[in-house]
Amino acid sequence: MHMEALASALDSAYVFVAAILVISMQAGFALLEAGSTRMKNAGHVAGKQIISFAITGIFFWVAGFAITFGDGNGFVGLKGWMLHLGGAEADQVFSSLSWAHVPLDLKFLFQMAFAAVSLAIAWGGFAERAKLSVYFVFGILFTVAIYPVIGHWVWGGGWLAKMGMQDFAGSTVVHLQGAVAALIATLLLGPRIGKFTRDGKPNLIPGHNQVYSVLGVIILWVGWFGFNAGSTMAIGDGFFSYVALTTNLATAAGAIAAMLIAWFVLGKADIPSMLNGVLAALVAITAACAFVEPWAAVVIGAIAGIITFFTSLYFERKGVDDPVFAFSVHGIAGIWGTISTGFFASPRLVEKVGVGQAGLFYGGGWHQLYVQVVGALGAMLYVAAVSFAILYLLKVTMGLRVTPEEEITGLDLSEHGVYGYPEHLDPAENPAFTSETVSAKAAGHAYERTI
Amino acid sequence: MHMEALASALDSAYVFVAAILVISMQAGFALLEAGSTRMKNAGHVAGKQIISFAITGIFFWVAGFAITFGDGNGFVGLKGWMLHLGGAEADQVFSSLSWAHVPLDLKFLFQMAFAAVSLAIAWGGFAERAKLSVYFVFGILFTVAIYPVIGHWVWGGGWLAKMGMQDFAGSTVVHLQGAVAALIATLLLGPRIGKFTRDGKPNLIPGHNQVYSVLGVIILWVGWFGFNAGSTMAIGDGFFSYVALTTNLATAAGAIAAMLIAWFVLGKADIPSMLNGVLAALVAITAACAFVEPWAAVVIGAIAGIITFFTSLYFERKGVDDPVFAFSVHGIAGIWGTISTGFFASPRLVEKVGVGQAGLFYGGGWHQLYVQVVGALGAMLYVAAVSFAILYLLKVTMGLRVTPEEEITGLDLSEHGVYGYPEHLDPAENPAFTSETVSAKAAGHAYERTI
Amino acid sequence: MHMEALASALDSAYVFVAAILVISMQAGFALLEAGSTRMKNAGHVAGKQIISFAITGIFFWVAGFAITFGDGNGFVGLKGWMLHLGGAEADQVFSSLSWAHVPLDLKFLFQMAFAAVSLAIAWGGFAERAKLSVYFVFGILFTVAIYPVIGHWVWGGGWLAKMGMQDFAGSTVVHLQGAVAALIATLLLGPRIGKFTRDGKPNLIPGHNQVYSVLGVIILWVGWFGFNAGSTMAIGDGFFSYVALTTNLATAAGAIAAMLIAWFVLGKADIPSMLNGVLAALVAITAACAFVEPWAAVVIGAIAGIITFFTSLYFERKGVDDPVFAFSVHGIAGIWGTISTGFFASPRLVEKVGVGQAGLFYGGGWHQLYVQVVGALGAMLYVAAVSFAILYLLKVTMGLRVTPEEEITGLDLSEHGVYGYPEHLDPAENPAFTSETVSAKAAGHAYERTI
Repeated sequence: MHMEALASALDSAYVFVAAILVISMQAGFALLEAGSTRMKNAGHVAGKQIISFAITGIFFWVAGFAITFGDGNGFVGLKGWMLHLGGAEADQVFSSLSWAHVPLDLKFLFQMAFAAVSLAIAWGGFAERAKLSVYFVFGILFTVAIYPVIGHWVWGGGWLAKMGMQDFAGSTVVHLQGAVAALIATLLLGPRIGKFTRDGKPNLIPGHNQVYSVLGVIILWVGWFGFNAGSTMAIGDGFFSYVALTTNLATAAGAIAAMLIAWFVLGKADIPSMLNGVLAALVAITAACAFVEPWAAVVIGAIAGIITFFTSLYFERKGVDDPVFAFSVHGIAGIWGTISTGFFASPRLVEKVGVGQAGLFYGGGWHQLYVQVVGALGAMLYVAAVSFAILYLLKVTMGLRVTPEEEITGLDLSEHGVYGYPEHLDPAENPAFTSETVSAKAAGHAYERTI
Repeated sequence: MHMEALASALDSAYVFVAAILVISMQAGFALLEAGSTRMKNAGHVAGKQIISFAITGIFFWVAGFAITFGDGNGFVGLKGWMLHLGGAEADQVFSSLSWAHVPLDLKFLFQMAFAAVSLAIAWGGFAERAKLSVYFVFGILFTVAIYPVIGHWVWGGGWLAKMGMQDFAGSTVVHLQGAVAALIATLLLGPRIGKFTRDGKPNLIPGHNQVYSVLGVIILWVGWFGFNAGSTMAIGDGFFSYVALTTNLATAAGAIAAMLIAWFVLGKADIPSMLNGVLAALVAITAACAFVEPWAAVVIGAIAGIITFFTSLYFERKGVDDPVFAFSVHGIAGIWGTISTGFFASPRLVEKVGVGQAGLFYGGGWHQLYVQVVGALGAMLYVAAVSFAILYLLKVTMGLRVTPEEEITGLDLSEHGVYGYPEHLDPAENPAFTSETVSAKAAGHAYERTI
Repeated sequence: MHMEALASALDSAYVFVAAILVISMQAGFALLEAGSTRMKNAGHVAGKQIISFAITGIFFWVAGFAITFGDGNGFVGLKGWMLHLGGAEADQVFSSLSWAHVPLDLKFLFQMAFAAVSLAIAWGGFAERAKLSVYFVFGILFTVAIYPVIGHWVWGGGWLAKMGMQDFAGSTVVHLQGAVAALIATLLLGPRIGKFTRDGKPNLIPGHNQVYSVLGVIILWVGWFGFNAGSTMAIGDGFFSYVALTTNLATAAGAIAAMLIAWFVLGKADIPSMLNGVLAALVAITAACAFVEPWAAVVIGAIAGIITFFTSLYFERKGVDDPVFAFSVHGIAGIWGTISTGFFASPRLVEKVGVGQAGLFYGGGWHQLYVQVVGALGAMLYVAAVSFAILYLLKVTMGLRVTPEEEITGLDLSEHGVYGYPEHLDPAENPAFTSETVSAKAAGHAYERTI
C-alpha cells in the first residue's frame, strides 16, 4: 500500500466514524420526539423513526443520491441510480464528490445519514395526528423529489454551489429543508385536539418524559460532531477538529443562553426551552462551523438559542401547533445559521475552505450575505411548494389525519394495535391499580380525560 | 514508523471503533429485552445484561478465546489461555487470526464482544422466570464450552472452515448459536404463568415499554456496522464500506417488509413485529454481507423480515413461550442468512473474500448450499445437545425456575430485593396515588392482577 | 502528505474517537443519576447534565485548559487563554501536552471532556435538594479554579508530575477530585428530607428507574474505553489496546465481585450495588490501566467493587446522604486506584509508559506507594478546602438548598415549572386515572406521600 492509498484509507476510517455518528442521531430524534409527546403515542412516535430511516436507506439508494450528487444540470443530478458504477466511472458521474478520497459506498452511507436527518425533522411536524400511511408516502417522495434537489443545488454542483453559497454541513440543505416540510405539514394537518381553547389560546401539552428528551438531545449533540466535523470528509491537517471546536462552543453557548432567557422571561428555567436552545445552536453553527472564528461561534450559538425561544412562543400564540418545535429549532435557526456567515465569515477560513467570500463584519461587503439570503429563500420556496403540492394531494385523496376518536385514544392503539406502555395506560395490566380502580375503568370512565 | 506499521496502526484504530460498536450492542439488548418484558422484571432484565457482559469479559479471556482461535484440532483450540503470549508466539498460536494485522489484545476485545452478543441472545430465552443463579452457571459454561467450539469450527480453522463455510460475521456462529441455546432454555423452563389459557391459546403479554425497544433496536442497528463491516478487520481498499452498504440495505428492506406484512395480516402495523423484522434482516445479512450484491441484500433482508413474522406467530401457537422471540429473530433468520449465500453468493465477491464458492443463482451449483446447510445443522446439533445437557442437569439439581409466587411478584423483588420502578409499582412510593388507593392496597388488594 | 504527517493524522482520528466516547459519558451520567433519584426530580437531574457540559464547554475554553496545561509554575498554568495561539507557539505554551501529535483544538476537546466528567461527578453530591443557581455558580468556579489546579499538578508538569505520580487517565485528577467536591456539597447541604428517621436510621429512597441506571452504566463502561485507552493519545504500536484490555478485565471483575458480595451480605443480588461495583472498578483501574498486568487488573477491579459496597453502607449509616454514592464510587475507589499502582505497577509497563517506578509487589520498594499517597492526599486537601470555601460562602449568601416545600414538591416543578413526567405524576394528565381518583386529588389528597 503506498502513501496516497494509505491517506485515503485513513480518510475512509474517519468518514466511517462520522457516518456512524450521524446515523446514531436517529436514536436522538426517536427519544427527543417521544419524550416531547404524550404516552398514548409514544410507541408510534419512536417507532416511526425506524420507518423513516428504512425508507431513506432504500430510496436514497435507488434515486436520491443520484439526483443529489450525480452529474446533471444546475437543478438535478441525472446519473448514478443505485450506485451501479465502477470505480473510475463513479468518480466521473459523482464529480461533485470527487474531492473526497473515500469509497463511493461510504460517501453514500454518510450522505444517506444526512438525508435521514432531514426526513426525521420533516416528520416532526406530523406528530400525534397524521396517519401512518401518510408518513410512508410523503417519506418516499421527500427522499427522491425534495431533499435531493436542494442537495444538488448546494452540494451537487447546482446553481447555488455556483453562486458560492456557504452551507458547510447543511443548515439549509438538511435542517431548514426538513423544517419547511414540517411547517407545511403542521399547517395542513391543523392543531392537535385540545391544543387551543375555543378563543384560540394555547394550552400546554407537556411531553411525557423529559429524561428521554434530554437523552435524545445529548445523543444529537454527540452525533453532530460527525455531522459537522465529519463534513470535512478528511483528516488532513486536523481542520476537522477546528470545526468540532466551533460546533461545541456554539452549542454550549446556545444551551446557557436559552436557559437564562427562559429563566428570565418565564421565571423558571424551563428544560424544553433549554433543549431547544441546544438544538438551535447546533443547527445554526452547521452552516458556519468552518467559516467563523471561535468568538463568532459563541455569538451565533447564543443568538440561535435566544431567537428560537421567542419564535417558539410566537408561533404557538399565532395558532400554529408544531408539537416538537421543528420549525423554530430547525427552520428559524437554520435561516439564522445560513445568513450568519454573511456577517461572520472570516477571510482566513474562507480561503481555507475555498467556498464563497468573507462576511460583512470582515470587510467582505454585502455579497456573501446576499448569496446566503438567496440560498435560504430559494430552498424554502422549493420545499414549501413541493411539500404543499404533495400533502394537499394526499389530503384530498386519502386524508392526512386520523379520526378524532383515534387521536384521542392515541396512535399506539389506532395505528399499531397495542399501547407502547400497556402497564402505564391500561390499568388492567398494572398491578398498582386496585380492583376498584379497574372496575371503574370497566364501567366506562377510562380515557375521558385524555385530551 | 514505516509504511507497513502505519497500515497496521490504521487497521487497529478501525478495529477499535468496530469493537466499541459491537460492545455498545449490550445497551441495545438491555433495552430491547427490558422493553419487551414487564415492569416487575425490568431492573432484573436490564441488569442481567451487565452480568452477561462481565462473565464474558472474564471467562472468554480465561479460556473461550483460546478454544475458539488457538491452535488445536478441527474441533477445539487448545492454546493461548489468558492471552499469555509474546508477539511472535501469539501469531503462531492464533494462526487462524494472523491475517488481521492488529494487536492480539484488540483481536481479543473484538471477538469477546461477539461472544457477549451470543450469550445475550441465549439469555433471552430465560426471560421473566429463570433463577439468577442459573444465568450465572449457564453463562460461564456457554462462554467456555459452547460458543468457542462453534467459533473454532467456522472461524478458528476447524472442520467447517476447511469445508469453506461462508459465515462472514456470524449468522451461525453468533446468532443461530445463541438462539438454539435460548430455545432449549425456553423449552426446559416452560411458558410464563399466564401466557397460555387452559386450552392452550396464547395470551398477549405485551412488553412494558416500546420506546426502550425501539431505542434498543436502533442501538443494535448502529452497532451492527461494527459487527459486519468491522469483520473485515482492515480498512484496506474500502471493502468494509461495501459490507456496511449491503448490511444497511438488507435491514431497511427487512423493516419495511415486516411492517407491511404485519399491517396486512394483523390489520395493524404492529411495532414489535417491525422491530423483529429489523433484527431478523440484520441477523440474516450477517453471514452474507460480504458475498452478495446489493439487490440480493435487499431480497435477503425482506425475506428475513417476513419469515420471522410468521415463525413468531407459529411458535407461539405451538405453545412455545419465547418472550423476546429469540429463536425466530436470531435462529430462523440465522438459518436463512447462512443458507442464503448458497443461493446468492456472487463470483466476484467470493473471489474477493476468498472463502467458499459462488451460489446456485450464479451457476455455482449445489455445492455451497450443501456446505451452508451442513454448517447450520452441525452448529445447531452441537449447541442443542450441550445446552440441553447443561440445563437438564441444572434443572434436576438446583432447579431452573423461580417459584410461582416469585414469578408473580416479579424478579426485581424476588431476585434483587427492590423494584426496578418502585414509584410505578409500589403505590406507597408514588405521590400520584391517593391515600384511599394506598389503603386499598394495604388491605390486600395489591398485585392480584399481576399475571 | 509525508509519513510523519500521516502518523499524526491517524493519531488525530483516534483521539477524535476517544473524545467522542468520553463526551458520550454525559449521557451515562444523566441516565445513571436520573434513574437513581426520584420521579419528581427526574427532568431536573437529567437536564442539569446538559448545563454541566455547556458550562465546561465555555469556561474550560476560556480559562480551565490554560490553567491545566499552559506553561506556568508547579501550581498553575498561566498561558493559553481561549487557545489563542498559532501552531508553533501552541507547542511551546502547552509543552506539557507536546508529546501528543494531534492538533491543539483536539487536545482541548479531549481534555474538556475529562473536566466535564469531573464536574458531573461533583454535581452528583448536590442531587435532589440544591438550588439550580448554586449549580451554575459552583460549576463555573469548579471549571476554572478547582479542576485545572489538580490537573496541572499531575498532568500539566506540576509538582506531582515532577514527583512521578502515576495517574494514567485520572483516578485522582478526574474521579477523586469530583468525589471530594461532591462529599463537601453533600455535607453542607445535609440529607434529603425523609432520608433518616428521627433516631438517625437511614431510610431507603430507591431510585425510580433501574433501566435508566443500567443503561447509564453501560454507556459509561463503553465511554471509558475512550477515557482510558484514549489517554495514550496515539495508536503507536497498539499499546492502547492493552490499556483497553486491563480496563475491561477490571470492570468485569468489579461487576461480578460487587454482585456476589451484595448477594452474600444482603441476601439479594442488589442491582444498584452491582452497578456501583462496575463504576468503582472503572474508577480504580483508571490510574492503573497502563501500569499493571492483566491479573492485577482483575484484582484491582474486584477489590474496588467490594470496598465500595461496604463504604456505601458505612457512610449511609454514619448519616451522610450521598444520593448517587458519588464519594464511595468515585472517591474511595479513586483513592484505591491511585495507590494500587504503588503495589502493582509492573517494571516492564512502567518502563514503557515512562512515569514513576515499579510497585511494592515487584520489588520497587515503598517509594511509588508514597508518591501515590501524597498525590491522593494533596488533591483531596486542595479540593476539599476550595470546595468548602466556595460552598460555605454560597450557603451564607444565597443559600444552597431549596425550601422544604420545594424539595417535597420536587425540583422539576420548583426549579423548572413543569414535571419531567407530567402524565405519571399529575393525575389530571393521565388517562389511566379515573375521574374519582382525580377528584380525590383535587380535594387535596395529592402529594401527601411524596417524602
